[in-house]
Amino acid sequence: MPELMKTFSMIEVGKTEVVEKPIPEPGPDEALVKTTAALICTSDVHTVNGALPVENGRTLGHESVGVIAALGSSVTGFQEGQRVAVNAVTPCFECNYCQRGFTSQCGGLLGGYKYTAQVDGNMAEYFLVPAAKGNLAPIPDDLTDEAAAYACDMLSTGLMGAEHAEIQIGDTVVVFAQGAVGLCATIGAGLRGAGRIIAVESLPNRMAMAKRFGADDVVDFTQGDPVEQIMDLTDGVGADASIEALGAPQTFEAALACLKAGGTLSNIGYHGENPAPLQLDLMAFGLGMGDKSIRTGLCSGGSDRMRRLFSLMSSGRVDPTPMTTHRFAFDQVEHAFQMMANKQDDIIKPLITF
Amino acid sequence: MPELMKTFSMIEVGKTEVVEKPIPEPGPDEALVKTTAALICTSDVHTVNGALPVENGRTLGHESVGVIAALGSSVTGFQEGQRVAVNAVTPCFECNYCQRGFTSQCGGLLGGYKYTAQVDGNMAEYFLVPAAKGNLAPIPDDLTDEAAAYACDMLSTGLMGAEHAEIQIGDTVVVFAQGAVGLCATIGAGLRGAGRIIAVESLPNRMAMAKRFGADDVVDFTQGDPVEQIMDLTDGVGADASIEALGAPQTFEAALACLKAGGTLSNIGYHGENPAPLQLDLMAFGLGMGDKSIRTGLCSGGSDRMRRLFSLMSSGRVDPTPMTTHRFAFDQVEHAFQMMANKQDDIIKPLITF
Amino acid sequence: MPELMKTFSMIEVGKTEVVEKPIPEPGPDEALVKTTAALICTSDVHTVNGALPVENGRTLGHESVGVIAALGSSVTGFQEGQRVAVNAVTPCFECNYCQRGFTSQCGGLLGGYKYTAQVDGNMAEYFLVPAAKGNLAPIPDDLTDEAAAYACDMLSTGLMGAEHAEIQIGDTVVVFAQGAVGLCATIGAGLRGAGRIIAVESLPNRMAMAKRFGADDVVDFTQGDPVEQIMDLTDGVGADASIEALGAPQTFEAALACLKAGGTLSNIGYHGENPAPLQLDLMAFGLGMGDKSIRTGLCSGGSDRMRRLFSLMSSGRVDPTPMTTHRFAFDQVEHAFQMMANKQDDIIKPLITF
Amino acid sequence: MPELMKTFSMIEVGKTEVVEKPIPEPGPDEALVKTTAALICTSDVHTVNGALPVENGRTLGHESVGVIAALGSSVTGFQEGQRVAVNAVTPCFECNYCQRGFTSQCGGLLGGYKYTAQVDGNMAEYFLVPAAKGNLAPIPDDLTDEAAAYACDMLSTGLMGAEHAEIQIGDTVVVFAQGAVGLCATIGAGLRGAGRIIAVESLPNRMAMAKRFGADDVVDFTQGDPVEQIMDLTDGVGADASIEALGAPQTFEAALACLKAGGTLSNIGYHGENPAPLQLDLMAFGLGMGDKSIRTGLCSGGSDRMRRLFSLMSSGRVDPTPMTTHRFAFDQVEHAFQMMANKQDDIIKPLITF
Repeated sequence: MPELMKTFSMIEVGKTEVVEKPIPEPGPDEALVKTTAALICTSDVHTVNGALPVENGRTLGHESVGVIAALGSSVTGFQEGQRVAVNAVTPCFECNYCQRGFTSQCGGLLGGYKYTAQVDGNMAEYFLVPAAKGNLAPIPDDLTDEAAAYACDMLSTGLMGAEHAEIQIGDTVVVFAQGAVGLCATIGAGLRGAGRIIAVESLPNRMAMAKRFGADDVVDFTQGDPVEQIMDLTDGVGADASIEALGAPQTFEAALACLKAGGTLSNIGYHGENPAPLQLDLMAFGLGMGDKSIRTGLCSGGSDRMRRLFSLMSSGRVDPTPMTTHRFAFDQVEHAFQMMANKQDDIIKPLITF
Repeated sequence: MPELMKTFSMIEVGKTEVVEKPIPEPGPDEALVKTTAALICTSDVHTVNGALPVENGRTLGHESVGVIAALGSSVTGFQEGQRVAVNAVTPCFECNYCQRGFTSQCGGLLGGYKYTAQVDGNMAEYFLVPAAKGNLAPIPDDLTDEAAAYACDMLSTGLMGAEHAEIQIGDTVVVFAQGAVGLCATIGAGLRGAGRIIAVESLPNRMAMAKRFGADDVVDFTQGDPVEQIMDLTDGVGADASIEALGAPQTFEAALACLKAGGTLSNIGYHGENPAPLQLDLMAFGLGMGDKSIRTGLCSGGSDRMRRLFSLMSSGRVDPTPMTTHRFAFDQVEHAFQMMANKQDDIIKPLITF
Repeated sequence: MPELMKTFSMIEVGKTEVVEKPIPEPGPDEALVKTTAALICTSDVHTVNGALPVENGRTLGHESVGVIAALGSSVTGFQEGQRVAVNAVTPCFECNYCQRGFTSQCGGLLGGYKYTAQVDGNMAEYFLVPAAKGNLAPIPDDLTDEAAAYACDMLSTGLMGAEHAEIQIGDTVVVFAQGAVGLCATIGAGLRGAGRIIAVESLPNRMAMAKRFGADDVVDFTQGDPVEQIMDLTDGVGADASIEALGAPQTFEAALACLKAGGTLSNIGYHGENPAPLQLDLMAFGLGMGDKSIRTGLCSGGSDRMRRLFSLMSSGRVDPTPMTTHRFAFDQVEHAFQMMANKQDDIIKPLITF
Repeated sequence: MPELMKTFSMIEVGKTEVVEKPIPEPGPDEALVKTTAALICTSDVHTVNGALPVENGRTLGHESVGVIAALGSSVTGFQEGQRVAVNAVTPCFECNYCQRGFTSQCGGLLGGYKYTAQVDGNMAEYFLVPAAKGNLAPIPDDLTDEAAAYACDMLSTGLMGAEHAEIQIGDTVVVFAQGAVGLCATIGAGLRGAGRIIAVESLPNRMAMAKRFGADDVVDFTQGDPVEQIMDLTDGVGADASIEALGAPQTFEAALACLKAGGTLSNIGYHGENPAPLQLDLMAFGLGMGDKSIRTGLCSGGSDRMRRLFSLMSSGRVDPTPMTTHRFAFDQVEHAFQMMANKQDDIIKPLITF
């Protein structure tokens, strides 16, 4: 009889619980990781609210790090006991989508996002890693588990937002919303060489964090139309690029409207809970001819990306850990999850340790 | 007193006429061209319908070729009598937008499109060329005026549609609508290495022309939902890239819906006459995370682009002239324009000779 | 005791022979293919000449197609009996190099090129396919084995030469050498939208084939310095892009010298047999500041690329089979190989059928 | 009779002097700038040594800022008295090279580099600006003349080195040589998101400055083969990208050899004084198939680039002024130039004020 482990699972829509399940066995291409630390993600709140059609009982979580507990027979180049992180997206690397470089779309639309969506997630004492040779990312000795966990989704997604924005060195970039992913997009805009970063946010602690992470200006959208404020800040010209990091119609539309001709809107917000189709205002869209681009994407996966995200933290260029506003042991995970769902106490990211 | 020339002008919204105006004098950076041939564009029909806020009396036209009649004092490298074409977009090349490579957005949104929109157009016996050093494009001896005129807008815009679609060699590309620009986008998809080109159209002569210009399949949208037909043709997978060449909500939405994850929608249709904002269906948009891109653009200008378009015709790779369904002398221009407005007699492009 | 199969192997440097070996068993991620057709490649001639440090007895060949004979336990999505081709490069898809998109450099420099270089090749009655899920490429029903075999190396490499040349629509492109790979680069230049293609070659049958495959001009380097001839053809301006498809110092240097400022040299020739380092003439190199680029690459692998190459042939856009100058049954493979080594009888590519 | 101004000119090869010349009059597209500050560049030392075929008496200098003294009749959007900087490269923006985006190659190889090479430079009390509409770059109020002068060449060239290196976020980047341009390339590597920057240098003050500007490691090439040291630092893997900022055979060859397969060498060093062609070691070059790229370039020009460089300094992200090791009034320019020629007193950049 297999040993049991504790998991944080969705019993049904609207209900979560710590549940015991058997510790899984890795298949030939898989690895089993014993979790040491994990971050809670707002995506899981959406999932529990019913945003994804997930079967009852599925384990939540996709931002976990740990040590290798067991390796499948075909997985070479790693050893048990090694500290590793695994990206929220765990592609097969071999399908046509992966071969084209769209690992997040492994097997089809959003298909690289497997934890919770397709299989058990990793907010659990142990978790499986598919295509382990490409997905296991060794954590450098100089990085804490906490720092490494930010590479799993927050940094990977936020920095991708900046990469997709096609920033030229010295450009003016607007980042809409400064939750954890938006804050990482702000970091990312700096990493791609933005000359000026304008963050849009209204919560004071997030506004302050945005400045700490590199924003030059913070526009408070409760103090007036953000597009007008951005136009004022840019002498009526608008931004070279914008990043939507919320997933709401207003921010999406503003992110298009504040762009000058030739600019790029990089969307990283999840629009799955929007009540209606997004709208492209014809003038903001340049009547379809303004040389504006809209790009979208989902957290890029794979160990080479993780290696590079780790490198940015090892060298001290990036430190996302100020976003860890709260810390809990795994036996408090439900309480932490509720805080996250209710955005209580200025929470940004809660760290769970095992 | 300056000599007079005949021009085809918009007297007021809904009314056109051949009007005499003084032959203009070129400024230091300008050239004066004596027109030899021109094509009528549907854009001018839109303009006369009131789509653009144009002052009464403005000369129409932006697809003209001719011979240099006079050169401004600063314009070197050309001589009077030389055969030249001028792109519909006539950028200054020096403003910030031009410097970033967005010559169509010269000075701001859509600002490179000057003929008729900002100054007199070139459906006239003579016309001025701003920034002549960069905008005058010598026509190779082996090209007819008719062929050269297609480079002014149709080929430049249509091929740009394919360039923006980021086609990988062998990709499946769908082109929505097979008017003159759409047909050129079909040509362009082949020129970027599409493996399979699916055209969407319902008029028999345009469907036949699409095949002649490289389409492998032509989907007739009157025979069933085009997205479903495209999915059937691609075993349920969808297209790698799509091009919208009409400027209508239905085609735009279909062009997004038929794309597989990671695909690019290249919009070249003019959406200025849409009654309402364009809509992004959330699933078709991949919930904002499907690695889909939407790109837009307006006819790229400049003599280097014209040189390259001419080269494609000189080598025989591209021959757009089968699209010339009708030919008229300039004194019949109003009749030709009415035919274009009413899409009579299977008209695609009417050529006007001077 | 396993059944035996015939293989065409290198006994030692300078010596080849048909040798019997056991039919191999596929591992969990592998497939076994029963060969139906194969092309002989000049690379194997280099190998037998000692260019690669290959252990004695290694089977030659890397351009084979066939039917699936057996599938490893983890390989899903395929079935026995299915017609498939396999690219000469068979990446793992999961290492850091593959994750960065450099499948030809799987595991390190040139590491994706496994057949013969690292394991037995596939000029044999059966052959193994590593990482079969990503490397097995189903052949469309409308393609012959012969056509499909061209996708394994010739088309993949030649077209990559054109892709790396960063051709803008209408550009002037020079292709140095019109062997099978160079001819495919000529095809590729057309597929990326070159306006004018200048091929460099001296053998009459290859010069004729170059024209057939899209070259507008063919420069015979025995009739005068090819760079001068190219400059004459381009009014002293030079080429927008060049492709080196031979692997010799003279062609490499000429490919740089004929480029105008801002141009790209795409190297696909193998320089492993050069006697000395390649040289960059300082003026041709623009003193290091001419905005010229040099790109290199090795046959890109994977089933998505094969799918796209097949699509180009299925639609009739590309037909490489006129390059099959000779045809042999497998029992004549040694004779065919000798002809290839000696470039007898105007041979370009010999097809071997099983 | 025109007024006279002082200029720092090259009397003949090997000899410089302060010479009086008439203050020039701007043509219709030009502007006249009254110089307020300038930096001396090692390029001028090369020029005086005879590297460029320059006519005797030509004024030196190409890193000057000042205020507009007069505007040509066609130059709109600026006013006399306005503070401006002008890039070392002053393109026409209209020729085919400029239209392709290669402003440094205006009119042909290196043709955008006009000051001193083609016309009088701007180490003078006044200087002319060609194509002034595109070349005049207003200096923001919050920037000193000194800071703005760094945008003219040092930052534009150094950052271009990083832009051409095609750095992915988190990559390991090596920068060879830490003179002023190399130091700016180090800054640039950080601005494009390098995870780890390895600088190669041996002079202690430059090694220290490299660390200050973002280098994580500094390899002293006098302490052992730099390629071996880089391999040791990267666990034998090598760099993702390298930048050559010296213009010497050894650094160029090392920059290629330290690259892993798939990496990019970005050359910004001037190789005009090399005694012989550069060499590409065959293994370092991956036998022509290693997916390595070599890119070259010359200081990109134009006011939009200047705007973006200024933005990086206005926001405090970049501060190049610590490189100003020495300061002189214009009447000491010859002394300053001699110090630069002899690299005396740990000089990096001397600032000349007017």
